[in-house]
Amino acid sequence: MNNPKSVAILGSTGSIGTQTLEVVRQHREEFQVEVLTAQNNYQLLITQALEFEPNAVVIANEDHYPTVRDVLQPKGIKVFAGTKSISQVVEMDSIDVVLTALVGYSGLIPTINAIKAGKNIALANKETLVVAGEIITALAKEYGVNIYPVDSEHSAIFQCLVGEFHNPIEKIILTASGGPFRGRDREFLSTVTKAQALKHPNWDMGAKITIDSASMMNKGLEVIEAKWLFGLNKDQIDVVVHPQSIIHSLVQFEDGSLKAQLGLPDMRIPIQFALSFPDRLKSDFERFDFANFAALNFEEPDMDTFRNLKLAFDSLERGGNAPCILNAANEVVVEAFLKDEVGFLEMSDVIEAALAKVEFVKNPSLEDHIQTDAKARKLAQELLLKIS
Amino acid sequence: MNNPKSVAILGSTGSIGTQTLEVVRQHREEFQVEVLTAQNNYQLLITQALEFEPNAVVIANEDHYPTVRDVLQPKGIKVFAGTKSISQVVEMDSIDVVLTALVGYSGLIPTINAIKAGKNIALANKETLVVAGEIITALAKEYGVNIYPVDSEHSAIFQCLVGEFHNPIEKIILTASGGPFRGRDREFLSTVTKAQALKHPNWDMGAKITIDSASMMNKGLEVIEAKWLFGLNKDQIDVVVHPQSIIHSLVQFEDGSLKAQLGLPDMRIPIQFALSFPDRLKSDFERFDFANFAALNFEEPDMDTFRNLKLAFDSLERGGNAPCILNAANEVVVEAFLKDEVGFLEMSDVIEAALAKVEFVKNPSLEDHIQTDAKARKLAQELLLKIS
Repeated sequence: MNNPKSVAILGSTGSIGTQTLEVVRQHREEFQVEVLTAQNNYQLLITQALEFEPNAVVIANEDHYPTVRDVLQPKGIKVFAGTKSISQVVEMDSIDVVLTALVGYSGLIPTINAIKAGKNIALANKETLVVAGEIITALAKEYGVNIYPVDSEHSAIFQCLVGEFHNPIEKIILTASGGPFRGRDREFLSTVTKAQALKHPNWDMGAKITIDSASMMNKGLEVIEAKWLFGLNKDQIDVVVHPQSIIHSLVQFEDGSLKAQLGLPDMRIPIQFALSFPDRLKSDFERFDFANFAALNFEEPDMDTFRNLKLAFDSLERGGNAPCILNAANEVVVEAFLKDEVGFLEMSDVIEAALAKVEFVKNPSLEDHIQTDAKARKLAQELLLKIS
Repeated sequence: MNNPKSVAILGSTGSIGTQTLEVVRQHREEFQVEVLTAQNNYQLLITQALEFEPNAVVIANEDHYPTVRDVLQPKGIKVFAGTKSISQVVEMDSIDVVLTALVGYSGLIPTINAIKAGKNIALANKETLVVAGEIITALAKEYGVNIYPVDSEHSAIFQCLVGEFHNPIEKIILTASGGPFRGRDREFLSTVTKAQALKHPNWDMGAKITIDSASMMNKGLEVIEAKWLFGLNKDQIDVVVHPQSIIHSLVQFEDGSLKAQLGLPDMRIPIQFALSFPDRLKSDFERFDFANFAALNFEEPDMDTFRNLKLAFDSLERGGNAPCILNAANEVVVEAFLKDEVGFLEMSDVIEAALAKVEFVKNPSLEDHIQTDAKARKLAQELLLKIS
């Protein structure tokens, strides 16, 4: 038997983090939790640490540090505080793979540090590749690090490519549920509330990605993520709306054959595969059954109504720091929408304005991305103030 | 560049044979036709040989031997006659892979000889595995030979298993179009004609397999074929009716993840992959497009109406020479149906009676299979005489 894989989970108290721990719980002989990190939820972090006995934990919000330390240090668990500690802790020698489930742009620097420390990455934080895909993929190559996708769509494609990495991809088809507002028009969308947008028909996820799903920005970010994960150009990436979320995505090869990965919507499958690859581990996750799905449906995405998807494709084509601007502005407007400070449709307006106004950089360095992110956020905030 | 693969095509003038030559025609630098064989169609065999310049051809019907010889021998092509020659010619040193597209039981002995000569097999003749799967798979193991499936369903599963042969299969789901009589009841089926049964909604195939598709015996034979190709038991093989024939079949792994292979119904894709594996070759075959398929539908197979499928599952469970009996009786009744000598529903009656009456052999040798086949044919013929 092999030694268990040693896993650092960045963002262990979120939706992906807790499901990762469910996977670990079912496969204790396969995985050892080495590091857990949380932003604010120190209570759950403590509970998790007591159960999984990691080597170290990080609580990013320093206010909670004394509480966490007082409980966990006596158990022999190292406790660190602050955002910077997340970027440092990933470098620990004992870590085999870093699962990054941080929200948004905050995943970027820890991921870069983990790659530079030679750690394989299980990537649940798509924004990292959206913002700096070129830099990240070049670094992964330089340091001989694998990036295993956790996003269900990208995991689907990765699963279809297993054994076929030598065969060129003709194109991929990302499936999209269409979210809670599929088929709705702009008039309807002008009135929707946060509560409506947070009700995803198929997936139970964190707030940010759920809003992104409702606005189809999530699919837009996934298009850009796919470009970098699989080395594709814009014309090789299609999106099809598939309301049941059973086919998680498809690959088309140069012989015309397509492969798809399917299953009930359950993030534990892609999480587990990202950790267990190239092996699959027996699970008791509920199985898909055609008896419950007499039809699987497909339709074109409506990019006139859901403009975010179009903006994302445009950003991908433009390249440079455009996806970074798109992402930063989106993070600002989603946060505002979750505080009822901006309307659903106005989110796209702000993002489009940011893309038009923030200075374009053709070949951005990491420093350029950091500056672009800051500028785009500032501009988006200003635009929001004008709207309200 | 590698040397081209040297291919023997058994049954080159049939549906699979001619499509195999279409594949070769598109990839002359990849494939060299070494042998072509035909049963009766000597004119097409000559045309094919003049185009592809094989080392040798076999015309099984000896009546046509002089004609074929007179045209091809002057071109330096060896010409053989008779069924036995097919089994001998596969042993030629220069052959890399034998594509067996013979119809029915006749594929058995040539396939065994090819395996014993160490040739990889591209198997389009499912009856070979139905009749003697245990013997064939044991021989393939003994001689270090790979069997690449050509049947679209089994190719789909094989394509999904690429890179995952080390991961146990939980189950497979074979898709079935349901044929031209899907949804029909026994009253309707009692009146259907050969002409109706030969109109398959999705696939353009030979007469025998088209009738088998209409009666769902084809799916039954595929269930048994799948057992041997992928080492499964009966409970690991499901059948789902999928009228559009876009998803060609699925594999479910032990983590609950499913993989499927999809595409427009086009046998050239599985033929080509069986020959090009592990590589995929660029093709101009028409591509699948979700824009033309707003829904993919699925339903349970109706085994009360289409009893052949049930009989095949029962034979698989019973094991021994039961599938051999099933196959022999089926070949007899399909031939009779094509001559308007038996009704559509009566085909199942004859097969069932044969299964009940031919002596059961638990661990049949090849000789037992040959005897079983002869006995079952004789009995089926007798039963047909009683009916008419």
